Amino acid sequence: MNPELPPNTMQPVLVPPEDADTLHPEAGDLFKDNPIDRRCLRELSGKSIINVADLSRSEIIELCKLAAVLEKIEIAPYHPLDGKVAVTAFFEASTRTRLSFESSMLRLDGKIISIADGKLTGVAKGESLYDIGEMFNAYCDLVIMRHTDTDAVDQLRQTLRVPLINAGNGSGEHPTQALADWYALLKWRPELSSTKPSKDNEKLELGILGTPGSMRAVKSFLLMSLYFSQHIKRVTVISEMADPFGADVIDHLKAAHIDYEVTNDIQEILPQLDIVYMNSIAFLGDSYKTLDTRYKLDSESALKESAVVLHPLARQDELDKSLDRTSHNLYFSQAHGAVFVRQALLMSVFNRLDRLPGQVPTIG
Amino acid sequence: MNPELPPNTMQPVLVPPEDADTLHPEAGDLFKDNPIDRRCLRELSGKSIINVADLSRSEIIELCKLAAVLEKIEIAPYHPLDGKVAVTAFFEASTRTRLSFESSMLRLDGKIISIADGKLTGVAKGESLYDIGEMFNAYCDLVIMRHTDTDAVDQLRQTLRVPLINAGNGSGEHPTQALADWYALLKWRPELSSTKPSKDNEKLELGILGTPGSMRAVKSFLLMSLYFSQHIKRVTVISEMADPFGADVIDHLKAAHIDYEVTNDIQEILPQLDIVYMNSIAFLGDSYKTLDTRYKLDSESALKESAVVLHPLARQDELDKSLDRTSHNLYFSQAHGAVFVRQALLMSVFNRLDRLPGQVPTIG
Amino acid sequence: MNPELPPNTMQPVLVPPEDADTLHPEAGDLFKDNPIDRRCLRELSGKSIINVADLSRSEIIELCKLAAVLEKIEIAPYHPLDGKVAVTAFFEASTRTRLSFESSMLRLDGKIISIADGKLTGVAKGESLYDIGEMFNAYCDLVIMRHTDTDAVDQLRQTLRVPLINAGNGSGEHPTQALADWYALLKWRPELSSTKPSKDNEKLELGILGTPGSMRAVKSFLLMSLYFSQHIKRVTVISEMADPFGADVIDHLKAAHIDYEVTNDIQEILPQLDIVYMNSIAFLGDSYKTLDTRYKLDSESALKESAVVLHPLARQDELDKSLDRTSHNLYFSQAHGAVFVRQALLMSVFNRLDRLPGQVPTIG
Repeated sequence: MNPELPPNTMQPVLVPPEDADTLHPEAGDLFKDNPIDRRCLRELSGKSIINVADLSRSEIIELCKLAAVLEKIEIAPYHPLDGKVAVTAFFEASTRTRLSFESSMLRLDGKIISIADGKLTGVAKGESLYDIGEMFNAYCDLVIMRHTDTDAVDQLRQTLRVPLINAGNGSGEHPTQALADWYALLKWRPELSSTKPSKDNEKLELGILGTPGSMRAVKSFLLMSLYFSQHIKRVTVISEMADPFGADVIDHLKAAHIDYEVTNDIQEILPQLDIVYMNSIAFLGDSYKTLDTRYKLDSESALKESAVVLHPLARQDELDKSLDRTSHNLYFSQAHGAVFVRQALLMSVFNRLDRLPGQVPTIG
Repeated sequence: MNPELPPNTMQPVLVPPEDADTLHPEAGDLFKDNPIDRRCLRELSGKSIINVADLSRSEIIELCKLAAVLEKIEIAPYHPLDGKVAVTAFFEASTRTRLSFESSMLRLDGKIISIADGKLTGVAKGESLYDIGEMFNAYCDLVIMRHTDTDAVDQLRQTLRVPLINAGNGSGEHPTQALADWYALLKWRPELSSTKPSKDNEKLELGILGTPGSMRAVKSFLLMSLYFSQHIKRVTVISEMADPFGADVIDHLKAAHIDYEVTNDIQEILPQLDIVYMNSIAFLGDSYKTLDTRYKLDSESALKESAVVLHPLARQDELDKSLDRTSHNLYFSQAHGAVFVRQALLMSVFNRLDRLPGQVPTIG
Repeated sequence: MNPELPPNTMQPVLVPPEDADTLHPEAGDLFKDNPIDRRCLRELSGKSIINVADLSRSEIIELCKLAAVLEKIEIAPYHPLDGKVAVTAFFEASTRTRLSFESSMLRLDGKIISIADGKLTGVAKGESLYDIGEMFNAYCDLVIMRHTDTDAVDQLRQTLRVPLINAGNGSGEHPTQALADWYALLKWRPELSSTKPSKDNEKLELGILGTPGSMRAVKSFLLMSLYFSQHIKRVTVISEMADPFGADVIDHLKAAHIDYEVTNDIQEILPQLDIVYMNSIAFLGDSYKTLDTRYKLDSESALKESAVVLHPLARQDELDKSLDRTSHNLYFSQAHGAVFVRQALLMSVFNRLDRLPGQVPTIG
């Protein structure tokens, strides 16, 4: 137990090992009898997804609805991406994210060519992204790129004429991680998809252990959260940095009329939070910065009974395994759902929604 | 010629280059008119294969019979693993074994995501197998793992809920290599599949150049050999180590009533052996130990005319190329058959035996 | 602008960014109403392609015609390489070439197993190509190999019994790169496919910045050019080396009655050339040699207005980006077409021309 945190008097629900699957909540009623709006998703056909701003709120909701369908049915027999080739171009290695995308493509019968680690290959030894973009035009129908440099996306797009999905660019964004985050939250609380504002006493307190200004996953999560501002009371960043939000994120928070706050007192804020978003890794130049050891969570942490924890794994010791078998654990659902929400995005970008089996209710 | 070995007075049959395929004996009569018992193989559906003990003698025989069928027919048009995704997670790199499994999956129209070298990737830099197991649950339908640590299998299975095939764990086991070994032996001598004991003068002398106690491939081979003890006269390990067998293997040999012996005199024992099993590599902590130079085989070695040599390649110079074009060479058959016996296992674990073409005789 | 070159008084046609696709000329009239000779291409069935000499002039023309078809139609729904497995064995890493071949295989529904970087894998650590060849026999239907050693091809073929496509062997050859080069040239000037000699004043001046004697791509390009000698006036190598051609290439040039010349005065020769072939990289033992800085091209270089530049990318600064949006740029077409001409070759080697859709005009 972490001595710096108050004891957790509100015991979380413990999930026995044999019920591990209950840690992945199913899509709620909202998704069940709500046909997927294909007209809305067709707007994504052929589109590059670089930042959260490349997706509208409706598109996010429809992608999550489609993901919930894909999580239930067996899509493989319909071969929706038959004949389509994507390159996973990971100039910054990330096995977890790469495999998530590759699994998504392959389960839809798409094909993958891969640069698993750009640092190790001939490409990028002096070869410009400008030239690599031209090469990708010839080799594939979609590029999924991760890169250590924030402006790598712009460099590649000088020549790229096929769609690009940004899988993380330096201290920029990671929009499909945010999709996975919100897919988990919408499965947890389907009512968050409603355009009708929550009552004030039902609005959610969002807490972030991390720095949106320099962590792309945190930044994209926060920017996507703005689409759901009618359900959010306040955003608190728990950090010791002077300006953890970053100037542009602050502007967006103001424009969305969301209260925000910075604190370094985790003990005070933790019992108030409904959603805790953690991230272990910050980009500071080429190196990583881990969270202060005081900012760790375990099953003894003073979490509200109904609170959920999100974490775009992999984790170090900032998120203790003792939380895994508690009802606070939404991070396994988040990881699990990522494959399906990426499938939904791929089917939309490739405009292959017509390959959904007939029994899936759709409009448009 | 190795000066420490007596001259080989019994000349092996030389195979001319144009008949190289005869080095891969076909499945014998036993397999030909013997329908595959699908009920038996369905016991493997969804099952993890960690150790030889996870397979019964009947299952081994049926897998070899199925492999013999898959070696003859063209299975691709039946797409037996359509829609199934396996991860080849090679935290210890082994291109040969990885490609063998990947070829097996792909020829059955399964899909592969891959960690080709765990040491080089983000995964496993501080990320626990406990978390990696949870990730694999979301990404694939089967895990094929190799790892330098013997207990990596147990660590992964804390969270893993899809089947796991152990492709080598530290000094533990490598059960599918043993399947490939015995598939080659059963093609060589189909009568070994009989439950009826061999006559005493027809029982086989098994010799092992290697240490079952510390070499996983040798250990798994020896453990699988116990299922065929009614045809084995004696097991001799040729080694200079004090206890090359390892305590638990000795217990199994005793329980199976098989004579066993240790010798360091290769000159004396070699002319008596029917099967010579070699292995060039021993795990000693993180380093490798090669065989003593005296324990090398070439075409001048004093092998019995009818003797066969097995070796789970790759080889160094302990197994000389001069043996390749002799009838002693069963190691090419062993390597060749590995792809098919792994196909048989994959079809069984994925419970897709119903995708076999109609002309394949089956029961159950 | 390069001060050592005379100013370019003949302005090239500038291509606006929105018309980037016009940089990839379409197949001309010759290909359009000219049925593909399948009987000719069936000669390639099961054949290894090691050197340019393994292809006849007719086969090259027919492969380019087939490539032009594959560039236009959607071949994926016909799954021409269904069930076929190729290994991309890149013992010398080359992401660009590997991905080009993998994209070609996958677009035809073939499967890929891969050694992305031989230096990093267990294979080749002391394992002989002789043994690797035997392994490939079991694992795949085709080997696509790149290797730093020129004789690696011969070593592998000691045991290999499936076809081999040479993707570059030391200072040897790179025949599929030459196919991509000539596919681009035949799209640019379809009349080059005619067996009727060009008029003397219409014959082409070919200039090479590089050393055919030590650069495999340049060598293969030059050797393939000999098949089109009736349209070539002269070959000039711009180099400071004493014998940049190499003895055997000279012999071939003499036999084809082609004039050839060596110069180190790029200023004098450049305005006369119709085709400029560049290559940035020369093998000198294990190291690379880049071109002299004087031998760089940019949009100010004194190129003939109608001249085209070829370059088997990746490039360093010897080929300036300012040429990209000019009509001199044939290197993007060259890179783009490589995927399709490799598809044509794969369909021929695998003898799957019967999978072409019915509307494609064929004979034989």
